[in-house]
Amino acid sequence: MSDVSDYITDHKEQFKDELFEFLRIPSISTSSEHKEDVRNAANFLIKNLKSLNLDRVELFETDGNPIVYGELETDHSKPTVLVYGHYDVQPPDPLDLWKTQPFEPTVREGDIYARGASDDKGQSFTHVKALEAYQKSGKEFPVNIKFIFEGEEEVGSPNLVPFIESHQELLSCDMVLISDTAMFAEDTPSITYGLRGLAYMEVEVTGPNRDLHSGVYGGAVKNPANALAEIIAKLKDDNGVIQIPNFYDKVKVLSEEEREAYSKLPFDEEKYKNDLGLKKLHGEKGYSTLERASARPTLDVNGLWSGYQGEGAKTVLPSKAGAKISMRLVPDQDPKNIAQLFKEHVESIAPETVSVTVTKHHGGHPAMTDLSFYGLKAAAEAFEEVYNKEPLFSREGGSIPIVADFQKILGAQSILMGFGLNSDAIHSPNEKFALKDFYRGIQTSAKFFEVLPDYG
Amino acid sequence: MSDVSDYITDHKEQFKDELFEFLRIPSISTSSEHKEDVRNAANFLIKNLKSLNLDRVELFETDGNPIVYGELETDHSKPTVLVYGHYDVQPPDPLDLWKTQPFEPTVREGDIYARGASDDKGQSFTHVKALEAYQKSGKEFPVNIKFIFEGEEEVGSPNLVPFIESHQELLSCDMVLISDTAMFAEDTPSITYGLRGLAYMEVEVTGPNRDLHSGVYGGAVKNPANALAEIIAKLKDDNGVIQIPNFYDKVKVLSEEEREAYSKLPFDEEKYKNDLGLKKLHGEKGYSTLERASARPTLDVNGLWSGYQGEGAKTVLPSKAGAKISMRLVPDQDPKNIAQLFKEHVESIAPETVSVTVTKHHGGHPAMTDLSFYGLKAAAEAFEEVYNKEPLFSREGGSIPIVADFQKILGAQSILMGFGLNSDAIHSPNEKFALKDFYRGIQTSAKFFEVLPDYG
Repeated sequence: MSDVSDYITDHKEQFKDELFEFLRIPSISTSSEHKEDVRNAANFLIKNLKSLNLDRVELFETDGNPIVYGELETDHSKPTVLVYGHYDVQPPDPLDLWKTQPFEPTVREGDIYARGASDDKGQSFTHVKALEAYQKSGKEFPVNIKFIFEGEEEVGSPNLVPFIESHQELLSCDMVLISDTAMFAEDTPSITYGLRGLAYMEVEVTGPNRDLHSGVYGGAVKNPANALAEIIAKLKDDNGVIQIPNFYDKVKVLSEEEREAYSKLPFDEEKYKNDLGLKKLHGEKGYSTLERASARPTLDVNGLWSGYQGEGAKTVLPSKAGAKISMRLVPDQDPKNIAQLFKEHVESIAPETVSVTVTKHHGGHPAMTDLSFYGLKAAAEAFEEVYNKEPLFSREGGSIPIVADFQKILGAQSILMGFGLNSDAIHSPNEKFALKDFYRGIQTSAKFFEVLPDYG
Repeated sequence: MSDVSDYITDHKEQFKDELFEFLRIPSISTSSEHKEDVRNAANFLIKNLKSLNLDRVELFETDGNPIVYGELETDHSKPTVLVYGHYDVQPPDPLDLWKTQPFEPTVREGDIYARGASDDKGQSFTHVKALEAYQKSGKEFPVNIKFIFEGEEEVGSPNLVPFIESHQELLSCDMVLISDTAMFAEDTPSITYGLRGLAYMEVEVTGPNRDLHSGVYGGAVKNPANALAEIIAKLKDDNGVIQIPNFYDKVKVLSEEEREAYSKLPFDEEKYKNDLGLKKLHGEKGYSTLERASARPTLDVNGLWSGYQGEGAKTVLPSKAGAKISMRLVPDQDPKNIAQLFKEHVESIAPETVSVTVTKHHGGHPAMTDLSFYGLKAAAEAFEEVYNKEPLFSREGGSIPIVADFQKILGAQSILMGFGLNSDAIHSPNEKFALKDFYRGIQTSAKFFEVLPDYG
C-alpha cells in the first residue's frame, strides 16, 4: 500500500490543479442557461477517467444531462463497488455575498472556496484519484470498481432512476460508495447510516387579477400575500409540530438505544448556536438539536415572494404571492404520500377569497444502512487508519434520494463516506472544502479499497 | 366663457401632444437612478408655465427633487386658489405585463396608456391647460392662482412639508385644488371629501447569520421566512380585524347618516368583484365594501421576500425574510402613533429565536373637507356644467397626505376634483387615463375658476 499512499502524497499539487479545473466549470443544473457548462463538467470526468486505463469509460445520454460511467474489473471473486457522485452544483446566488468568485477556486487558510468544492465535485473526485494512485503506481486495484456520476442531483435526479432501472446489469454491485455527506466535526470522521428524504412543494396564491392600488382597494379585497402568510403560519404550531393531518403516521419512532447513542455524540450546542449567530435554537418540542436535525421530519420555507421588493415603498396590493416549501422526511415516510398530504391540507386551509395552486417539485425517499453491513466495517477501518480516530456512526439531516433507489433497484446498500464538514456552506455563498480533507479523502478511499476484501 | 371653452376644444391635439411629452419622461422618484428624469419632468413644467405669461415661475431646490412654483395675481379681492400636483410617478414594474411601453404613451380605445397618465401628470396638467385657455384667448383669469408641483409624492413628500412651512406667505391661499383622485364611475363625476392616511412599514426577520442547507440544519433552527409568515398572520384575525392593540382607538365611528349616504352610492358589487376576477370579496366584518375601501383602516402586505425565488428548487434555509406592510388610516388616526403601535406589537409577537427589525417608510395623515365649504359648491357647479350630471360626494381609500398638511400649515381646505377612474390601474401595469376626461378635466377646471368668485 505504501506505493499507493506515497503516490497520493507526491501528487497533491496535480490533484489540486485537476480539481480546480473541475470547479471552474459552472455546472449549475437548476439553470437552463448553464446546460453546456453541465456537459463540460461531464466531459471533464470522461477525459479524466480515460487517462486511468479502465476497461470501459462511456458518456450515456439521457433526456436531461448525461451520465458518466466507468468500470474496471480486476477479479470476479472480489467485491464490486459502485462509486456514485454528481458533477452538477447548486446556483451560487446571492453572488454579492461571495468573498471570491464561486467558479474561481481560491485557497484561504487551508480551505478551497468554490461552488461545488464540497458538494460534490471535491468529495467525489477523491475516489477517482484513489484509483489513479493504484493504476499509476503499478499496484493492482484490490476490488472491482464502477463509477456513475450524474449531472442532475441538484434538480432531483429525474433521469438517474430510469437509467439505473434500465441498466441493472451494468450497475450490478455489492455496495455503493458515496462521498456527499459531512464528517461529524473537524478531524472527526463519521459514517452516515441514515439520511432524510425530501418533498419540495411550491404554493402560489392568486388574489385579484392584477396588482391593485392598496389605497383604492385595500380593505375590500383579500390580500394574497397576507393569505399566503396565514397558510404558512398554520402549517406548524408553536412547538414546531407540523399540522398536516397524518404527516407523522409513518415516522419511525426513535428507539431508546438510538436516543442514547445520539446523546453520546460529541456536540457542543452552545458553539453550534453561536456559529449560526442565534440567540436561541428552535425545533420540535421533546427532541434534542441533533435529533431534530437528522431523525425528525421538518417543514421549511425555502423561498417567498410577492409584490414590491425594491428600494423604498410602493403601495401595491399584489395580485400574486408564492412560496417554495420543502419537507425533510425520515424513514418510513413516503415523499409522494407526503406531497399529496401537503397539497390537500394547503388547499383545505386556503381561504375561499383567493385561489391557491400547489405544485410538486422533486422528492426523495429517506434511507438507512444496516449497521452490521461489512462495507461499513471496512470504511471504519480506512477512516481510523488515515485519521487516527475511530469514526462515529450518525444519521444526517440532508437527503441523497438515490441511496433509497440503489437499495430498491440494485439491492445494494450504501456507504456514506463523508469528507466534508457541516460548516462547508454547501448551498450557501462561500462554499468550501478543506484541502487536507481532499487529500485525506483520497487516502481513505485508497485504504478502503485495500481492506474491503478482508471483510467481504 | 365661450372663448375659453372654444380655445380648449380647438387645442385638444396640442394639449395631448404636450401631455405625451410630459409622460415620456420616466420621472420615477422611488428609484435613485431616475433622479435626472425626475428633474427633467420639473423642467418640462417650468417651460410650460413660462409660456403662459404668469407673474412668477420658479424652480425651488430642496434636499430632494425640486418644487415647481408659478403664480398669477389678477385681483386681490378675488379668491386665491393653490393648485397642487405631482410630476413624479410610481415605478412601472412588473414591466412584462405592460401591453405597450410605460413611457411611450399610446391611445387605445380612447384611453391614454402610460405610467403617470392618471397619477398624476394627466390629471394635474388639466389646470395648467385651463389657465392657458384664459391667457391665450384674451379672457382675464377670474381668480388668483398659484401652482405647486412636487416630485416626491410617490416617496412620501419628505421635502414638501418643510417647504410649505418655510414658504407660508408665498403659498397663502383660500383653498387648495387637487386633481389626484378618481371619479366614482365613468361619466359619474364626484368630489372626494375624505381621504385615508398611511403608515408604511418594513419588517426584516433574521434567523441564522447565513443561508443554510435545509437538510443539514432544517428542524433545529427557526426559519425566518416561517417566522415572518407567523408574524404577518397574527396581525389580522379571520374577520379582517387588525390585532394591533389600540389600533382602532382614534378611528372616527361612521355616523348613521354617513352609512346611509354610503348605501345610496351607485355601486355594483358583482361587477366590482368580477372586474377583479375574484370569487368572493373579503374585508372587515360588519362593513360594506365601499366602507371597507374608504372609511375603515386597513393592513396590507405590499411586498414579501425570502430565500430562493428562481426557477426550480433550491433547498435553502434562508438567513433573512422581509416584508413591506402598510396601513391605510382614517380620521383621526395619527400615522406616527400607528407606526409606533405597529413596531411595538410586531416586536412583542416576534419569537425570540429570530431577530426582528421594524423600520418606518413614509406616512401621511387622513383628511376630511367640510361638506359646507364654498369651494366644493363651485366645484360641483363646474362638474355639473361639463358632465351634465350632479357630482357625488364620497370618501376615497387612497392617501394624499399633503391635504392634511395644507389644512394644518396654511389653514386651507382642499377641493379634490378627480377626473380619473378607479380602473385606471394607477399603481399597476397598463395605467391609463381616458382622453375625453383629460379634455373634460380642462373644461371643468376652467369652469370652476369662472364660477368660484360667485360663491366666495
